[in-house]
Amino acid sequence: MNTFGQHIRLTTFGESHGAAIGGVLDGFPAGMTIDFEALQRDVERRAGCNKFTSSRAQNEADEIEWLSGIYEGKTLGTPIAFVVRNSDVRSGDYQSITEAFRPGHADYTYQQKYGIRDPRGGGRSSARETLVRVVAGALAKQYLASKGITISAQVSQIGNAIEPIEMQHVLEATQRAGDSIGGIVSCVVHGLPAGVGEPIYDKLSARLAYAMLSINACKGFDFGSGFEGVTETGSALNDEMQDGAFLSNHAGGILGGISTGQDIYFRCVFKPTPSIAQPQRTIDTKGKNITIEVKGRHDVCVALRSPAIVEAMTALVVMDLLPKRYFM
Amino acid sequence: MNTFGQHIRLTTFGESHGAAIGGVLDGFPAGMTIDFEALQRDVERRAGCNKFTSSRAQNEADEIEWLSGIYEGKTLGTPIAFVVRNSDVRSGDYQSITEAFRPGHADYTYQQKYGIRDPRGGGRSSARETLVRVVAGALAKQYLASKGITISAQVSQIGNAIEPIEMQHVLEATQRAGDSIGGIVSCVVHGLPAGVGEPIYDKLSARLAYAMLSINACKGFDFGSGFEGVTETGSALNDEMQDGAFLSNHAGGILGGISTGQDIYFRCVFKPTPSIAQPQRTIDTKGKNITIEVKGRHDVCVALRSPAIVEAMTALVVMDLLPKRYFM
Amino acid sequence: MNTFGQHIRLTTFGESHGAAIGGVLDGFPAGMTIDFEALQRDVERRAGCNKFTSSRAQNEADEIEWLSGIYEGKTLGTPIAFVVRNSDVRSGDYQSITEAFRPGHADYTYQQKYGIRDPRGGGRSSARETLVRVVAGALAKQYLASKGITISAQVSQIGNAIEPIEMQHVLEATQRAGDSIGGIVSCVVHGLPAGVGEPIYDKLSARLAYAMLSINACKGFDFGSGFEGVTETGSALNDEMQDGAFLSNHAGGILGGISTGQDIYFRCVFKPTPSIAQPQRTIDTKGKNITIEVKGRHDVCVALRSPAIVEAMTALVVMDLLPKRYFM
Amino acid sequence: MNTFGQHIRLTTFGESHGAAIGGVLDGFPAGMTIDFEALQRDVERRAGCNKFTSSRAQNEADEIEWLSGIYEGKTLGTPIAFVVRNSDVRSGDYQSITEAFRPGHADYTYQQKYGIRDPRGGGRSSARETLVRVVAGALAKQYLASKGITISAQVSQIGNAIEPIEMQHVLEATQRAGDSIGGIVSCVVHGLPAGVGEPIYDKLSARLAYAMLSINACKGFDFGSGFEGVTETGSALNDEMQDGAFLSNHAGGILGGISTGQDIYFRCVFKPTPSIAQPQRTIDTKGKNITIEVKGRHDVCVALRSPAIVEAMTALVVMDLLPKRYFM
Repeated sequence: MNTFGQHIRLTTFGESHGAAIGGVLDGFPAGMTIDFEALQRDVERRAGCNKFTSSRAQNEADEIEWLSGIYEGKTLGTPIAFVVRNSDVRSGDYQSITEAFRPGHADYTYQQKYGIRDPRGGGRSSARETLVRVVAGALAKQYLASKGITISAQVSQIGNAIEPIEMQHVLEATQRAGDSIGGIVSCVVHGLPAGVGEPIYDKLSARLAYAMLSINACKGFDFGSGFEGVTETGSALNDEMQDGAFLSNHAGGILGGISTGQDIYFRCVFKPTPSIAQPQRTIDTKGKNITIEVKGRHDVCVALRSPAIVEAMTALVVMDLLPKRYFM
Repeated sequence: MNTFGQHIRLTTFGESHGAAIGGVLDGFPAGMTIDFEALQRDVERRAGCNKFTSSRAQNEADEIEWLSGIYEGKTLGTPIAFVVRNSDVRSGDYQSITEAFRPGHADYTYQQKYGIRDPRGGGRSSARETLVRVVAGALAKQYLASKGITISAQVSQIGNAIEPIEMQHVLEATQRAGDSIGGIVSCVVHGLPAGVGEPIYDKLSARLAYAMLSINACKGFDFGSGFEGVTETGSALNDEMQDGAFLSNHAGGILGGISTGQDIYFRCVFKPTPSIAQPQRTIDTKGKNITIEVKGRHDVCVALRSPAIVEAMTALVVMDLLPKRYFM
Repeated sequence: MNTFGQHIRLTTFGESHGAAIGGVLDGFPAGMTIDFEALQRDVERRAGCNKFTSSRAQNEADEIEWLSGIYEGKTLGTPIAFVVRNSDVRSGDYQSITEAFRPGHADYTYQQKYGIRDPRGGGRSSARETLVRVVAGALAKQYLASKGITISAQVSQIGNAIEPIEMQHVLEATQRAGDSIGGIVSCVVHGLPAGVGEPIYDKLSARLAYAMLSINACKGFDFGSGFEGVTETGSALNDEMQDGAFLSNHAGGILGGISTGQDIYFRCVFKPTPSIAQPQRTIDTKGKNITIEVKGRHDVCVALRSPAIVEAMTALVVMDLLPKRYFM
Repeated sequence: MNTFGQHIRLTTFGESHGAAIGGVLDGFPAGMTIDFEALQRDVERRAGCNKFTSSRAQNEADEIEWLSGIYEGKTLGTPIAFVVRNSDVRSGDYQSITEAFRPGHADYTYQQKYGIRDPRGGGRSSARETLVRVVAGALAKQYLASKGITISAQVSQIGNAIEPIEMQHVLEATQRAGDSIGGIVSCVVHGLPAGVGEPIYDKLSARLAYAMLSINACKGFDFGSGFEGVTETGSALNDEMQDGAFLSNHAGGILGGISTGQDIYFRCVFKPTPSIAQPQRTIDTKGKNITIEVKGRHDVCVALRSPAIVEAMTALVVMDLLPKRYFM
């Protein structure tokens, strides 16, 4: 189903090359004044207009039309609905690949699942859907900010580079090769008080993992000491306390699925964009062996555009788990 | 809330030192003959009776009492309820730590969340709850096996050791030091046909991540190329196809959140057991600085007992996402 | 929350005097060719343009704009989103009643619940929201019709009149008096096979009751022998069987919450429209006693416009409960 | 599914002639001291031991065993699980009717739905399941009472009798005839503040209707002016206000689905018990025409035992819809 969350619920719709994409955000508190400019900045961070991003991202205006739930700039407490028209619908571009299963894409699995698929730009599976998440998440971020909770994600690794200058070199070399490269986005939630998260299944960490893995191209999630902690001992990783405070934060701000009051920090890894400018072997829908080469400019590293999405999904999760007292 | 899943739903209850723990498995198909012996083997794998596991695990009989949903060894289609008595309730053992926040445990976060907590062995937060998951998951595994789908998890790394003999050495050295160590569990789902998983939020990968991170001590999840794929290019990781088949499986059997028909494989990392036999600094509930040292034998590596839990949660997720035709 | 249903889910949004109202219908099967003309007829039945209905109903074009989930006239299996603009927004009309709690309306309860309300025509609480239900329900009716299941509702009583000619007289007399009158809508589901409905809480009867009582102005629901059956005996109401068939249908086609294969029949009672052209005593938001008289033409009998809504909600319930085999 | 409610969730299990029936009540607040005696009184009201009730009701001890969620007589905030053993399991009694579809019972519809059914006393469909509702509802009633909200249901009509003495005569005459009779239960919620209920689908009235129609044998629900209001005008039924208060309560305490602060009142109609001591024509599972006559003492009027159930379900609904401030 196309709904995310339990108390703060985002329902999304739209195909990448249909009339519009959009969302309905239900359960959002009344009375919040929306900062539309800040929201627009997140939309633009996701579009990520630079030389390493796909051309479509730069041509879409991504203009948001608000349909309900807002009156004189304030939220009403009723469902907030919004749509974004698909202005740059050049379905023709995709005609040549209608019949091919692009390697690394969901073409094959959708065909297997539904027996039919909308070939125009991925249809419902397109990453364009993440724009709707960013819009809804921006509202959630603003609400959280009003409670002193801030969320900040950034690209922390591209290929094997962790320094900005190195990352730039990796991107340029990858682009020259007509290839793409993996990346890691790191996120920090600051100001979240202790006690947020549910004990058994709806642990804060579990809900974050679910949210991150729901983002296109995300292949993994860890928090605190994470995967690197496998080589560590309990005596090294346990966060001791003194004078009412933790002496370290290997927990990543979460113990037993519940926030400790320290910063929450976690990582998501994104695979290289599957669309590359190199010939690749695949089959068409009739099973015939073919070679395809994706035309047009595509993203060199999908992680570059992901921080705004990671922040948005984090905000929706955190707001969904916030105790009742934050809504009174 | 204490319910996991949407179509196949497990609701669990019980404190580690109350009368009993148990579960209600709703939505399970009628007519399956239960293999109680196979189920018992999973229960014992979780108990993991060897020299590296805690003493309680070995003293609990873990006898399952079936209350409903089964008639003459077959499932009825009605809710399957079962309980396991807490026979080895030695609450006295825990009295000394009543007032302390054990480092690395959920004591502090529960106190912050609820203002009150059941100090007897972690109460509801105890890993004893995972026994209920294993029982329910065993039923799901049996159903899946009848459809040709098998799930197999094992410990693939302990500390920096990936070979069994090396792992043994790491465990022994860690135990001698009164310490604990991290571990990774790898899991493979074999026989799952293409087309399982939902496109946007309920991706197979997202639901697996959620399930794994809901397990006590789990700090991370990745699938396919995962975190290690960050240094790779699209041309290296894209799985090409020829003659109707994939030539590789860097996708880990999932593309766009939907199964490809290849093996699903993923990893979960578990932190070292926080209970160790070394003195650690912490505070008590009044904020006073103290030093505590946990008595009694505890798990050297929580990952050792996790494969049965990982398999169980995987089975519940996969069964929940199976298309309708698998239930007719 | 603004979502109805579990498998076939309708999420609605929109204030009566905002930019638009609309809905997202999720879980609808792929491949159905939509009969847009039949759908439009239901929309018009709800608008119910005649001399006994409100003037707004006649001035709204109720033009549906489809945003997603449909491609070349067929459903895609993805969320079907649609909006209807609020073209006849004359908020000025309502200005005079901004401060008064209209008797029989939700003004007072909304104010008590939210502390704030959108006074323009009832905002979210307006019966205009039922238009969205009719659109979504029309799609469900078409799907059900393709499976041989038809739904038909009609006004069966107005005041004490059960004959059409008598009803006409009642309506005219009521309108002359500047008053409104109650009504009953009866509905029949034909062609539903035996076995639909869930045993305990999600009985077909319980879900229908929930759906009907969610319609504005609905005050009661009964099925089969219903309230009138209170004076009857078991020997009179039990439906005996002979030669494989029931000899009567006092059950209204539902036994133990599950369909019997006979016609389902039930009734809903609607209160008189609270807006009347007579002076009524009430208080304003400051607590001052005032007298108000609602201007403009209003519905004489809200039941007149309800059959299309009752059919729509019935279709959504029935489709939601249909066994898996109806979707393969 | 066998779960009722959204925030306060009751999951039930158990066949009438299996080992036990029971429930898990999740989301219940921590810290409430349970009045076990008051709870037991509700259990006994449901058993309704008098000469008009079935013999089984009188022989079952209905002893509740608490498994979790309670510590030293107080709720812990964790899932409250309880079971009741089925001590009076005389399955033999039912053997003769194994093959017959009892008129007015769910035998036929269960057979049609599942292709198989547990013939022992109705299995999961037995009214014995309502005992679990009464136990959970008693806890909810106690919580509500602590907030000043009380719920009281009683039989208000049996056959055509509305006076106690007349009812007694109707019951005796019906019992002598080996027959059964319909009844109406009326319920009042007192002390509920204004503002409870959700605007669109989760109206207080819709949720109550759903809850009541989920009770075995319930055939209808109305509130306030209800079905009898069909003959009334808006000027008669609108509740005017003066001096800050309503002058009448035809609304039954609910406007637009939200409580007004007045008493909530509603009615449920129950059909005559289908089990009667008269010969009735039916068919067996092979389709052969037969005549059956149900042996043993059965309920003359199922409505007699329903008030405790109606109160329980009302309490669960009201508690589920209570605003957040009631849980702090």
